[in-house]
Amino acid sequence: MALIVQKYGGTSVKDAERVMNVARRITDVYKAGNNVVVAVSAQGDTTDDLIAKAKEINPDASKREMDMLLSTGEQISISLLAMAIEKLGCPVVSLTGWQAGVKTDSKYGSARIKTIDTERLMMELDNRRIVIVAGFQGINKYDNITTLGRGGSDTSAVALAAALGADLCEIYTDVDGVYTTDPRICKGAFKLDEISYDEMLELASLGANVLHNRSVEMAKKYNVKMSVRSSLNNNEGTYVKEESQVEKMLVRGVTRDNDCARIALCGVEDAPGKAFQVFEMIAKAGISVDLILQSIGDGKTKDISFTVAEGDLDATLELLEKNKSIIKAREIKSTSDVSKVSIVGAGMVNNSGVAAKMFEALSDAHINIKMIATSEIKISVLVAQKDAEHAVNAIHDKFLSK
Amino acid sequence: MALIVQKYGGTSVKDAERVMNVARRITDVYKAGNNVVVAVSAQGDTTDDLIAKAKEINPDASKREMDMLLSTGEQISISLLAMAIEKLGCPVVSLTGWQAGVKTDSKYGSARIKTIDTERLMMELDNRRIVIVAGFQGINKYDNITTLGRGGSDTSAVALAAALGADLCEIYTDVDGVYTTDPRICKGAFKLDEISYDEMLELASLGANVLHNRSVEMAKKYNVKMSVRSSLNNNEGTYVKEESQVEKMLVRGVTRDNDCARIALCGVEDAPGKAFQVFEMIAKAGISVDLILQSIGDGKTKDISFTVAEGDLDATLELLEKNKSIIKAREIKSTSDVSKVSIVGAGMVNNSGVAAKMFEALSDAHINIKMIATSEIKISVLVAQKDAEHAVNAIHDKFLSK
Repeated sequence: MALIVQKYGGTSVKDAERVMNVARRITDVYKAGNNVVVAVSAQGDTTDDLIAKAKEINPDASKREMDMLLSTGEQISISLLAMAIEKLGCPVVSLTGWQAGVKTDSKYGSARIKTIDTERLMMELDNRRIVIVAGFQGINKYDNITTLGRGGSDTSAVALAAALGADLCEIYTDVDGVYTTDPRICKGAFKLDEISYDEMLELASLGANVLHNRSVEMAKKYNVKMSVRSSLNNNEGTYVKEESQVEKMLVRGVTRDNDCARIALCGVEDAPGKAFQVFEMIAKAGISVDLILQSIGDGKTKDISFTVAEGDLDATLELLEKNKSIIKAREIKSTSDVSKVSIVGAGMVNNSGVAAKMFEALSDAHINIKMIATSEIKISVLVAQKDAEHAVNAIHDKFLSK
Repeated sequence: MALIVQKYGGTSVKDAERVMNVARRITDVYKAGNNVVVAVSAQGDTTDDLIAKAKEINPDASKREMDMLLSTGEQISISLLAMAIEKLGCPVVSLTGWQAGVKTDSKYGSARIKTIDTERLMMELDNRRIVIVAGFQGINKYDNITTLGRGGSDTSAVALAAALGADLCEIYTDVDGVYTTDPRICKGAFKLDEISYDEMLELASLGANVLHNRSVEMAKKYNVKMSVRSSLNNNEGTYVKEESQVEKMLVRGVTRDNDCARIALCGVEDAPGKAFQVFEMIAKAGISVDLILQSIGDGKTKDISFTVAEGDLDATLELLEKNKSIIKAREIKSTSDVSKVSIVGAGMVNNSGVAAKMFEALSDAHINIKMIATSEIKISVLVAQKDAEHAVNAIHDKFLSK
């Protein structure tokens, strides 16, 4: 008998039919002799509807009260799913975050799970009940309800799996698993059977949108074996686990991120600490800088380029304008007409030819590279937005054509 | 500084505008220097919508899961109301049933409040916060969420007032208070300034639909002073309190109840224990009998008439048919074309002329009385349904014309 933790997202339980479908999946696993704990998100648009209700009354409502409101979305899901399982004749109990013992810090709206008191969960499992837990929520030390923020239900599932020592944590979503790249823009894209935590982290933060980073970080920390699969079919998904057990494939995926903008500070005084000054100023304003490129100075001036999220562009430019007397750039240029294209793979750390091969692919496709950044398991380039899809296809063909 | 407990029903908070309106009422009382605890129901049709969602998935869902589902309705209300109060700049905190320490028995769907642990409530009040509590809900000894059933939010409010030793428990509804009779059928109806617990109990059970009986019973038990008033205007409502403090008015109200049916067992054997046999059989089937009339027998046979709720008529007739060999009635007659018209007043116990005066009013109006039943503070008559409105008016004119 194995202990399986499953997580179903909002689209998987969006209406009565989908709820019954999910209930059948769960009871199949249960009837095969396994213990099952399920974390569920709010149905479809419930959370958005609740936010709209709140905004109508008070757009500046406290996060404490927002969490009180939003946590009802998952409470509705868990009770409906439990009712569906009752209909299929299996013993079941639904538990809110606090009933399941999910203790968080007090950062309302984006709380982090601190511990899970598993006493109640264990008692229910000992009674051979299927346990349906409200994802995305917990309570803090004041007995107030908290929510975990974006991707919270994934994190709930992984935390439950870690606390209970589950054999597997299955994340059900509306895609078949983790793909080498976005199948909508690259015909050659294919599903990966396995991926390491670190690779998944890079892919998630690069816009793969399958798993939230916090859940993967937690899975890595507690060595929780995960799988990502579709709730709409029976296809095998993608397993996410320790690198050592993963076959070494040089490049695991290609990603594209259009949500970036480039700013260039041209002709900045070539003095020590100049870059520090600029980036400290930006960091203090709460803006995240991604790629950074600094030209080799001519002794007098140099150019500093960097990228930020597209939504932060205006605020960054305003900040630079306000401080132009400190920065003393000859010119500040910017564009949001850029995309970041990246390759990710744990294997590339030991293979110096990967970058060259990537650049060759882009060169063959006549795509101009505006910036380059590398880490141990990823290489990112900035290209014109119009070139991005072409770039993804060219790189994918080079590394991942089957 | 007084401690005021208020209760707002679903129609009082049905949309954003009404929620803001209620928030203003609450903050006015708070700013006048009072401590305020508020029990709220689910918004408008929320509970019905949730029930519909459940029915679509499983019409026979367990009551435990139904309570998990339905309790979200009040949780939505309390957070939205708290947000509205935040907007008005007053310190506020919303609490679910379990956060407010409301402990109930385990009868899901119609739980009874056992105790309220006031520690959290007192702490919030000590910090001069307005406290918004989810009505209609609590938790049982297993830490499972329970709901209180019909009229539950009224009961929550009275229980909070009792536990906190509040100075007043204000029940806000969509009517101005308790009327002498239904203003829709009697032009002369007027609002009562005061009424005793016992009178209110009789009026509530006779269909006045303003306060639920359980809340009045609890108010009486713990001597909680209540008032019933409208959330839509500033009119003084009706105070419900100990009889001793209430001015003695012979008759306090006239009620009509169309939800009744009469069954007559004609020519039953006139032997000891016959009535007992019949009514024990009906009671065992879970059917409540209201008025009972037994003719004086002729030594051989007698007639027994009684009334039941209209919805119980068919089941009762079936039961009697099945046991006709025991009952041995010559004929069983029934009709649902009857109404019960009652007068209620604590003063009538010491005034023998009241019944005669009531019958005189009906006689003058040429209304035939089919059955009569009296208690210490009420007299009920059964009339043809077509005569009921006329009867209410005639009796109201006789006793309560201003």
